[in-house]
Amino acid sequence: MQRLEHRACFGGWQDVYRHDSKVLGCEMTVGVYLPPQAEHGPCPVLYWLSGLTCTEQNFITKAGAQRYAAEHGIILVAPDTSPRGESVADAEGYDLGKGAGFYLNATREPWARHYRMYDYIVDELPAWVEANVPASGVRAISGHSMGGHGALTIALKNPGRYRSVSAFSPIVAPSQVAWGQKAFAAYLGEDREVWKAYDATELVAHAQEKLPLLIDQGGADEFLQNQLRPELLQAACEAAGHPLELRLQPGYDHSYYFISSFIGGHIAHHAEAMR
Amino acid sequence: MQRLEHRACFGGWQDVYRHDSKVLGCEMTVGVYLPPQAEHGPCPVLYWLSGLTCTEQNFITKAGAQRYAAEHGIILVAPDTSPRGESVADAEGYDLGKGAGFYLNATREPWARHYRMYDYIVDELPAWVEANVPASGVRAISGHSMGGHGALTIALKNPGRYRSVSAFSPIVAPSQVAWGQKAFAAYLGEDREVWKAYDATELVAHAQEKLPLLIDQGGADEFLQNQLRPELLQAACEAAGHPLELRLQPGYDHSYYFISSFIGGHIAHHAEAMR
Repeated sequence: MQRLEHRACFGGWQDVYRHDSKVLGCEMTVGVYLPPQAEHGPCPVLYWLSGLTCTEQNFITKAGAQRYAAEHGIILVAPDTSPRGESVADAEGYDLGKGAGFYLNATREPWARHYRMYDYIVDELPAWVEANVPASGVRAISGHSMGGHGALTIALKNPGRYRSVSAFSPIVAPSQVAWGQKAFAAYLGEDREVWKAYDATELVAHAQEKLPLLIDQGGADEFLQNQLRPELLQAACEAAGHPLELRLQPGYDHSYYFISSFIGGHIAHHAEAMR
Repeated sequence: MQRLEHRACFGGWQDVYRHDSKVLGCEMTVGVYLPPQAEHGPCPVLYWLSGLTCTEQNFITKAGAQRYAAEHGIILVAPDTSPRGESVADAEGYDLGKGAGFYLNATREPWARHYRMYDYIVDELPAWVEANVPASGVRAISGHSMGGHGALTIALKNPGRYRSVSAFSPIVAPSQVAWGQKAFAAYLGEDREVWKAYDATELVAHAQEKLPLLIDQGGADEFLQNQLRPELLQAACEAAGHPLELRLQPGYDHSYYFISSFIGGHIAHHAEAMR
């Protein structure tokens, strides 16, 4: 592993590492924010999954999350959104291939070899984090858009693994919207039964653990009606008796201006759950 | 004028405008953050001058300043760093020409026609702001690196115009460092007497108003020894009896991670002065 960046920030350090991922078959970059408390002992970790087109840079430069992580003594881990490199398959368009891993394990070619972001986020990345930074093993997960889909599905599929989960503007029902249908068809094939394993709106019906879902959604989000459709998850949660706090924030769009405005509340929520 | 961006942020709006600048002979973009208090009446304005290579985007996306501006009810105005457009002269390198206006009025060709950032920041931009957004006419000024140089020199040259001034990692003595010498020779010619009009370390000796200077400087800043040299301003302030609070922040570099860590304190400082 290699440390690419090391920058003082709010009394701690915003680092970026490159490490070998066996699961993905490539090198991966990951942002790690160490709060000042990490100098004195292990801290809990909030994993942040970014959205389409992002790398680890978007969250670490734009969300303003370090301030709150420093206040609460939380490590922030922000990985890249897909495998990378010349050997990794890609596609035209921003919503498939590099930058668009959708946090699943692909089963179809040419994707199956590298596109295993689900296993990377659930297993390999936490193992790497807990071996290499002062992480306590207490975890929470959050994300934005495609990364909100990742956070919700990963938390729902792994009871006991995360103390809390939240999302900003998540793709809650990928099987029912164009972004998800394009990606799932390519990565998983046409059998829609298979898709259910990566669809939060399907997963809440069978969730073994009633981990409360916290979601903020901008009311002026340009993708709200066609790609995000939080009402589908809301209905599924009501039917399943799954706790959901869905907050519609009038006027806010899909950008990091929205995330930065509410990330403080999410970090406080995760800090409380991880205490 | 044209509004290019309009994004909800911390209860207010992060806007970006394009407007015609007569002084610069081109269109200019400028970021304007309106805090929630601006809905109810005029607010004081903090002008932010960015550094080499920046546009209005760097500060508005990376500094995390909107949170504090919303708390204190301050408008943030972040202009671009130079004239722009096909008719505007440029040069090889990041430290001359576009993105490197140095907040002065150029007198040499090919720069003199468009490179008049001093007049733009001192006169035309505030006039535009006060005519087009709910600004009270109470002003403060801050900036980073080349923009810290701009903030210090403009405040020192215009007594009574700003309630307060601060800077992050400013170029305090451009006449004595490579960045400044290259730019001043090109924009102003070889006569070093002329340079003194745009050099904070020279200007403090004759400042009519003893406006206190607040400066944060990262101790691990890669430009500290060769380009920034705050000790030169410190000595000049001591000789002139000019109030200066120079804070060396160990470990911090020249990036927006540094700015974001301390911008809250600067905004509180300006808010107090503008109250």
